[in-house]
Amino acid sequence: MTDLTAVVHDAGEVVTASGPTDPDIHEDAAVAVVDGRVAAVGPTDAVTREYPPANAATAIDADGRAVVPGFVDSHTHALFAGDRADEFAAKLRGKTYQEILAEGGGILRTVRAVRDASDETLLDNLLGELDVMLAHGTTTVEVKSGYGLDRETELRMLDVIARADDAHLVDVVPTFMGAHAVPDGRDVDDYVTAVVEEQLPAVADQGIAEFCDVFCEEDVFTVEQSRRVLEAGRDHGLTPKVHAEEFTRLGGAQLAADLGAASADHLLHATDADAAALADAAVTPVLLPGTAFSLGADYADPDVFADAGAPPAIATDCNPNCYSQSMGFAVALGCSGMGMAPAEAMLAATRRGAAALNRDDGTGTLTEGAPADLLVLDAPSHVHVPYNVGVNVVDAVLKRGSLVHREGAA
Amino acid sequence: MTDLTAVVHDAGEVVTASGPTDPDIHEDAAVAVVDGRVAAVGPTDAVTREYPPANAATAIDADGRAVVPGFVDSHTHALFAGDRADEFAAKLRGKTYQEILAEGGGILRTVRAVRDASDETLLDNLLGELDVMLAHGTTTVEVKSGYGLDRETELRMLDVIARADDAHLVDVVPTFMGAHAVPDGRDVDDYVTAVVEEQLPAVADQGIAEFCDVFCEEDVFTVEQSRRVLEAGRDHGLTPKVHAEEFTRLGGAQLAADLGAASADHLLHATDADAAALADAAVTPVLLPGTAFSLGADYADPDVFADAGAPPAIATDCNPNCYSQSMGFAVALGCSGMGMAPAEAMLAATRRGAAALNRDDGTGTLTEGAPADLLVLDAPSHVHVPYNVGVNVVDAVLKRGSLVHREGAA
Ligand SMILES: [Zn+2]
Ligand SMILES: [Zn+2]
Repeated sequence: MTDLTAVVHDAGEVVTASGPTDPDIHEDAAVAVVDGRVAAVGPTDAVTREYPPANAATAIDADGRAVVPGFVDSHTHALFAGDRADEFAAKLRGKTYQEILAEGGGILRTVRAVRDASDETLLDNLLGELDVMLAHGTTTVEVKSGYGLDRETELRMLDVIARADDAHLVDVVPTFMGAHAVPDGRDVDDYVTAVVEEQLPAVADQGIAEFCDVFCEEDVFTVEQSRRVLEAGRDHGLTPKVHAEEFTRLGGAQLAADLGAASADHLLHATDADAAALADAAVTPVLLPGTAFSLGADYADPDVFADAGAPPAIATDCNPNCYSQSMGFAVALGCSGMGMAPAEAMLAATRRGAAALNRDDGTGTLTEGAPADLLVLDAPSHVHVPYNVGVNVVDAVLKRGSLVHREGAA
Repeated sequence: MTDLTAVVHDAGEVVTASGPTDPDIHEDAAVAVVDGRVAAVGPTDAVTREYPPANAATAIDADGRAVVPGFVDSHTHALFAGDRADEFAAKLRGKTYQEILAEGGGILRTVRAVRDASDETLLDNLLGELDVMLAHGTTTVEVKSGYGLDRETELRMLDVIARADDAHLVDVVPTFMGAHAVPDGRDVDDYVTAVVEEQLPAVADQGIAEFCDVFCEEDVFTVEQSRRVLEAGRDHGLTPKVHAEEFTRLGGAQLAADLGAASADHLLHATDADAAALADAAVTPVLLPGTAFSLGADYADPDVFADAGAPPAIATDCNPNCYSQSMGFAVALGCSGMGMAPAEAMLAATRRGAAALNRDDGTGTLTEGAPADLLVLDAPSHVHVPYNVGVNVVDAVLKRGSLVHREGAA
């Protein structure tokens, strides 16, 4: 007994993202969804003959508009309390990062706010972010812990992430990141020991986190400290991820390759050799252009990775220092900022995001059998996502074939 | 007999934009609107005692969120037909501007599309753009002709702009720009003569256009040709505006100062002396960061103008080559791209935009007596406009005190 969940017909184009570098664009096409999974993509006539829209729970006349896979945002710190808008304004008025830190600002301010926040506040905050993400077309998002920096709060964050995943239509992928920063006044090696011996076993017991991430950076965690954390995580069944080569080239990319990480992220200072190592080890490079934009920094060069055979993903890095929930905006930065072609940036924001999360069930594609997470754009082509910059061109969002959001609907 | 149009109370802050460099931020405040104009801004208790929300046609509990003036977008080419998304994609795949021109692309392609479009198509297109602008908080927008480049089509464009102004809640300010480009194969001086002797008298007879604009740029119109057009326009009662110093420093800013133009726009290559001339002549500099973003060019330096005593406006330049209707995104680029402080960028996007349109009735402010065009943000502070980048933080839009848009409402 199968269920014709949805038919979206008369699309101007359907982008299936069938391969890591193949957008596979069907013009004048339709998508049929059976039991929440893509059953067919092809010419509207052929698809609707086999799957009559009248028999579908949801039928959408795309009326010449574009259909693309839902966005997969593979790198966020979207669970936090408070905001840091005042620091954003202070920096633009000339305050230095050092001055902001000296006044108690920066990441450790968010850590204090998260520690002080109730579980309900944290859950409300995350659900609010997920609402905005869904309205902007994100159907799967990774969310990291790492604003607790102690066992209790890291566990609380992961618990809230799991509750948000249950409560919200967006799929939420949980990452443990106790090694996000060093708590105030703490010796780094001592803190790494706490992450490895106190936090990680408890996180493993809790059974929520899928990935273990670390901020491998000068004045944060060295390559050796990062390796200690990630190997311990792996021993507990958590797949490694690495914040690598963001401000300096420290060796995080090579570490990610060495450990078979799911992804290495940021990579502004990665070299051709780093890119080759990631390609050899099948680690997905994740570029975060919003962070560079917010910090006024240069962008990573996507060609370095594409040329090495490791085509990169892009993600929002949504966090209090780079506050954007919009993957469409990340795609626009990927194009106008980093020079990616629009189809390339769309692949980076969908199936390659899924690769960075080790999802191999077709997530981030509209290939046959894939979960039918798809967007109907208010535009005739995927190119409008970066072209119509600063505007959300997502009209309808379908999750597993069910209509879960429509712009302009209450 | 007066009418209490609206009371917006319990705002976290109200930004009145009381002076060219004074955001004048009231915390925990309310706004009362009588007969469509701002009657009072002050502490919620005091304002609601004098103007009880229960007596108002529209009462909004802002619940700690921010209230700011509606955006005034003082430079757009938002009336066009077709789009140029394919050229945007082709450029990102490495095609040069020369190759695109050789294939019939660029501005003259839009000219062909506009000449071929019916009045109804043009009107529908512009109304669609205005809908998006209003949803993003723009309450007054300038729209230029200039995709006709012949008398008939320029008049048609201005007529459509006037009809859109009548039909839509957004106030639309019409600018004649016959001297936007040189038609294919036409001698430049010969075309300038046609603008001056054929187009301008007809435009004046038609009685719609308020401003006359010219693209003063190498390989387009020289300073002398620009002067001819603008002086002729002035003789017909049209106030000058100038596209100046965008790709080269040709002298358009000095020309604008000389003619007492309302604004000089783009200004990427303007010097301190140009800025001083604009300040002396009370010409508003209008910066267009979206254009630089879309072209991958450097931004204009807002400090050059602020330091000279001519604090700049910012606008979207919405057109097929820089397709963004969002003033919030322009504000974000003004901050993260150009280094403006958030309050400064908000002034640039409101009252200084009104100055670039010679509006001196309080448009772009929430000072007493100003038209009550205002936004309730889904955020506690105006800083969130640039901070929450890529996301539209406008919740409710009031035009002359009437609620005309609410996010999430159908
Ligand atoms: Zn991160
Ligand atoms: Zn222009």
